[in-house]
Amino acid sequence: MILVKIYVTLKDSVVDVQGEAIKDATHTMGYPGVSEVRMGKYFELKFDDSTESLEKDVDEICDGLLANPNIESYRYEIAEEA
Amino acid sequence: MILVKIYVTLKDSVVDVQGEAIKDATHTMGYPGVSEVRMGKYFELKFDDSTESLEKDVDEICDGLLANPNIESYRYEIAEEA
Repeated sequence: MILVKIYVTLKDSVVDVQGEAIKDATHTMGYPGVSEVRMGKYFELKFDDSTESLEKDVDEICDGLLANPNIESYRYEIAEEA
Repeated sequence: MILVKIYVTLKDSVVDVQGEAIKDATHTMGYPGVSEVRMGKYFELKFDDSTESLEKDVDEICDGLLANPNIESYRYEIAEEA
């Protein structure tokens, strides 16, 4: 089993409205030291060991399904699992 | 500036309906090797360098705002930033 951890984040040029709201909430909660919040998505995908062209597959799944390439970027880590 | 990367995921005992839907979509896209998908949230918080009790603050922000402790767990990494 191959575990792939995928992180999808808004591009820096895109205003993160949810992140701004969370930052304001942390200040209301009494944590004024929070100066910026960015919110993204996190996915864990498990692939069969027999998967060939794993990186190509992950790129296509990210571009076509998990991330909106217009406003989001992604990165991932591949970890083998027992 | 201190960068904290926070990962919020559903507990293993909780059925991940969105993850199941994404798994089905990957199969429809032609990637039958995807055997499991779990979806979570990812946050990047920047704290002022002067922040004391950083880990305590992060725990409280996670428990009170970013994660639902009933069904979600979280982990985080602390990275110094220039």
